[in-house]
Formats: sequence, C-alpha cells, structure tokens
Amino acid sequence: MSLEQPVIAIIGAGAVGGYYGARLAQHGYPVHFLLRSDYEQVRERGWEIKSCDGDFGLVAGATGIHRSPGAMPKADLVIVTLKCTANDQYAELITPLIKEDTLILTLQNGLGNEEELARLFGRERILGGLAFVCINRVGPGVIHHLDHGYIRMGEFVEDRRDRAERISAIFNQCKIPCDVLPSLKYGRWEKLAWNVPFNGLGAALDLSTDQVIGSEQGIELVTEIIREVMAAAATVGVKLPEDMPQIKVRQTRTMGAYKSSMQIDRQLRRPMEVEAILGEPWRVSQAAGLTNVRMGMLYRMVQLVNLGTLSNRM
Amino acid sequence: MSLEQPVIAIIGAGAVGGYYGARLAQHGYPVHFLLRSDYEQVRERGWEIKSCDGDFGLVAGATGIHRSPGAMPKADLVIVTLKCTANDQYAELITPLIKEDTLILTLQNGLGNEEELARLFGRERILGGLAFVCINRVGPGVIHHLDHGYIRMGEFVEDRRDRAERISAIFNQCKIPCDVLPSLKYGRWEKLAWNVPFNGLGAALDLSTDQVIGSEQGIELVTEIIREVMAAAATVGVKLPEDMPQIKVRQTRTMGAYKSSMQIDRQLRRPMEVEAILGEPWRVSQAAGLTNVRMGMLYRMVQLVNLGTLSNRM
Repeated sequence: MSLEQPVIAIIGAGAVGGYYGARLAQHGYPVHFLLRSDYEQVRERGWEIKSCDGDFGLVAGATGIHRSPGAMPKADLVIVTLKCTANDQYAELITPLIKEDTLILTLQNGLGNEEELARLFGRERILGGLAFVCINRVGPGVIHHLDHGYIRMGEFVEDRRDRAERISAIFNQCKIPCDVLPSLKYGRWEKLAWNVPFNGLGAALDLSTDQVIGSEQGIELVTEIIREVMAAAATVGVKLPEDMPQIKVRQTRTMGAYKSSMQIDRQLRRPMEVEAILGEPWRVSQAAGLTNVRMGMLYRMVQLVNLGTLSNRM
Repeated sequence: MSLEQPVIAIIGAGAVGGYYGARLAQHGYPVHFLLRSDYEQVRERGWEIKSCDGDFGLVAGATGIHRSPGAMPKADLVIVTLKCTANDQYAELITPLIKEDTLILTLQNGLGNEEELARLFGRERILGGLAFVCINRVGPGVIHHLDHGYIRMGEFVEDRRDRAERISAIFNQCKIPCDVLPSLKYGRWEKLAWNVPFNGLGAALDLSTDQVIGSEQGIELVTEIIREVMAAAATVGVKLPEDMPQIKVRQTRTMGAYKSSMQIDRQLRRPMEVEAILGEPWRVSQAAGLTNVRMGMLYRMVQLVNLGTLSNRM
C-alpha cells in the first residue's frame, strides 16, 4: 500500500461505507465509492453527513462516484462494507481493483468474511475491522451519524500488525478513532458473543434487546447461548472471559430499547445476515464436534424467519 | 351425574364453549352458560351458530345465561372451556356448581388442566377431552363453525371409562361426534407432539405452519422437538410411535397456511397458553431429569414473546 496518498475504494456504500469513506475524503484522501441504487443522486448531489461530531458535506466532484468496479482505479486500500448477504459478489466487485500490494479491509459483520476474501485474494492482504457506530442512511448520500464511530482492526495473518498500524494511523488522523486488536479472531468472537444471542433472538422473536433481557428467563437464555459461543470460540483458540455473559448483559442494559440489525431487517423484510452471524459460528461448533444445541436451533429458527419474511415480500 | 336430564354448565363460553353448549341445548339439554364480556348481548339476542353442518339459533330464553357462577344451578356436568391463562379462576368459577356427583370435563388445551382440577375438586370427578374443531367467535353469541367438531374424551382416573361412555353417548346424540380414548394421557401427549412444535414455533417466530415446514431446516427442527416431546411422554408411561414426527409433518401439510392459536394470540396481543402447551411438558421433562434443551429454549422464547406483546399492549 502506498504510504503517502493511498487510493481508497469503498465497496458497498451504505451507511457504514458512506460514513467512513466520507470521513477519509473530508481529510483529503482520494476515495472512490462503488454505489448501486444511490449512484445517480450521489453523483449529482454528493454526500451529506449529519454527524454528532459536526455536520459536513462533500460535493460530488470531491470523491469518485462509480457504478461499476471496472470504471474504478486500482486501489491501495479496498474497504468492504457490503452486507454479508452480498458476499457472493466479492470476486466480481473487488477483482478489478486489485494490484500487487492492495490491502483489503472488511468492516462487515460476523464470521467468515476474512476467510472468504483470503481464499479469493490471498491471506496476506486481508484485514478485518469491527465498527462500533450508530449510523443510519436517511436518503441517497445522506447519512445520519448518531453516536460512537470507532473501529477495532486487525490483520488476518495473526503475527502481522504493521499494515493495521498504518491504516489505523490514517483513520485516527481522519477523526475515525481506531485501534489495533491484539487478535482479530478474538475481536470477532467477542462481538459474536453479543451478536449471536441478540441478533439471533431479536430476529427470531422480533424483540428489542431490552425485551430480551427484561426477564429472568431472557437473561438465562442469553447466558446459555453465550456459553455456547464461548465453547465454540475455545475450539479455535479464543478464550473469552468466564463472565462474558454477565458483561454482555450489562453492556446491553445501557443500550435501552435497541433493535439489532437483524431485527430491523426482519421488520423491513430485507435479507438478514444469517450465515455470517449464526451459520458460520454454528459450523465452527459442528466441525469441532460440539452439540451447541441452542446455537443450532437459533440458526435454523432465524433461517425460517428469513425465508418467511422474504417470501412474504413477493 | 343424573342420567336422564343432566344439568350442564359451560364455564368459559368463547367459541368452543359456545358451540358445544349450543349443540347440547339445541337437542334439548338444559345448558347454563357462564359469560363475561358477551353477557349482555347474548342474554338479549341468544346464540347464532353458522355451521358447516347447518346454521341454527337459540333464543335467549332457551338456555341459562349467567354472569356469575353463584347465580347458576348446581350442575351434573361442568364443561370447562376457559382459556388456560384463566386457570387461576377454577376454584372461584367452578366451586359454586359442584354437588356430590358433579362431573367436570375440561376441553382445554395442553397439559396440567385435569391435574389442577383434580387437586381442587377430587380425582374421581375429572374427565378431559380434546376438541378437534375449526371454529371462530365472530361476535357476541355469534359463532362460525367451519369444519370438524369431534371430541375425544377420557377419564382422569385411567381405569374408569363408564362416565366417559355416558357423556360420549349424549354428545353423539347431540350431533357432536365423540369417542372415548383408551388413555386420556396418551391423547394429551399425542396432541402435544403437534402443539409443542407448531404452537411453539408459530408463536415464537410468528410463522404459519406451512412456513415452519416449508424448508428442510424447518422439518429438521420440528422433528427434533417432537423427539423431545416423545422422550418426555415416555417418562410418564406414554409410548408414542417412532414415526410420530413424520406423521405430524404429514398431517400439517394438509392444513395449508394454518395459524396456530398461539400465533393468533401473538398477532392479536392476547395472552398465550404458554404454560399448558410448553411449560407443563417442559416441567415433566425436568422432573424426569431429561435435558430436552429445545423444549426448554422454545418455552423461554415464547415466554419472552408473551411478555413482550402483552407489555406493548398497555
């Protein structure tokens, strides 16, 4: 990756991609966005970011707005913010952007994204990050940044951290608080310890997080599910702390009547990220010979809901 | 119970109680209904049954319409058609109707109703029945009988069947097809093998039965849950056939896009019969030392939904 003025490509410019890309462009980096449905309008009107840290806009000419990856320049850094349900488009969307030293950073949810990118483009160039941000796309090119925004990042090849450090430095310079995780794998599983129970139960039952932990039964259920995630994590060498369930329940209390992304997908009849959030962790359990009945049951229940809501949409 | 002209009391005159009571009154039996919200209107206008077997009405004076059990005559046969969520009112509602030889027949859903009635009023007088009927209350005193209607009945004290035979004869004479089960307990568990998965998943996920069994994952899930119900049944001496899951899936296919009663309760934000359908079978499992993780998980998930929908109502 060129250290000086890296060319950055954002693949999947929804709320997350739009926000982080706009931040980087705001601070002078050449950012190229790949858009689909919002292409015409963003090309005309540019970006408008209403942020808790101060609003800003970017005129259309300030960034590259593209409809096809073939029209984009080769990138030093490709940031992937696709919904995981579009991961079957990785090759088509990313291949045209790759040169020898291109790095790929996925900020997507769940498990398996780095693995799939590594399979397609080689392990060495892959990084992953967890985005902790409250953000909404309120219209084409219009993004509402409500709270937080920090990124925790790591390299897929676990003994490296030099490129992560460099990207992290760029991000911090662009008002994106960022740090480098000691282990990306640990970070992913630590986040799954929240995502599996709360996205899973939120989507299956159509309940917000406060409804899930609003009763003893709910806390019990969440605790048991997190224990299964911990057992799965242990099979790939990730040792989460013993009091992970209590920590996650405590964190969730501070969130109020929060709807998980998969609950929102359910309500809006959009495809859910079932495989990245529930399927992959379950397959890790299976591969290691764990029963993890609750994870398996939750996975299949959400698959049914996903099939049901998508078929109702038609 | 008087053989000649038994006085019949219907406790809980919703769709099921209204329909069966009206059938018995239609054929000349003295039937007394206990009503709450519909009392005024039924007292004025009587019953109107729109039935697939022929419509009929009963003028108000043809049956006893009561608002309080204290105003009702002692009964030879008390038929309980309360929603199970009202079982805490058994003593208050039924005690005033009891004389030495009163029989109590519960047509309620799920497990534990006979046990609770037996505890309150003595084992000898308790009978239970499963009503197989498609029926809706479309307004006060107006009941739409769509299909079926038969009752399978048994005595709580398993070595008796003489009273069940007598009541069954009365029912058959009143155009209520009825037979006596070899074992009430068997009948209850055989019905639970449908109710636990399909009411459970229907309520938890808000999916109709065709959506639940519309995919391989759904059939797998239903099969695993039925196997747990079978294991629970076995601990109380009920041996369900090995191919129960396939039988139930096959039966369910014929039902089309059917909504289980608990799914409807969810959608209408009414209390669900969680304990009778999921809680009691789960406690039987627990008492026998079975893990039955899926039943336990489903039970708690539906509890959360029940709490969630009821609190949203207020």
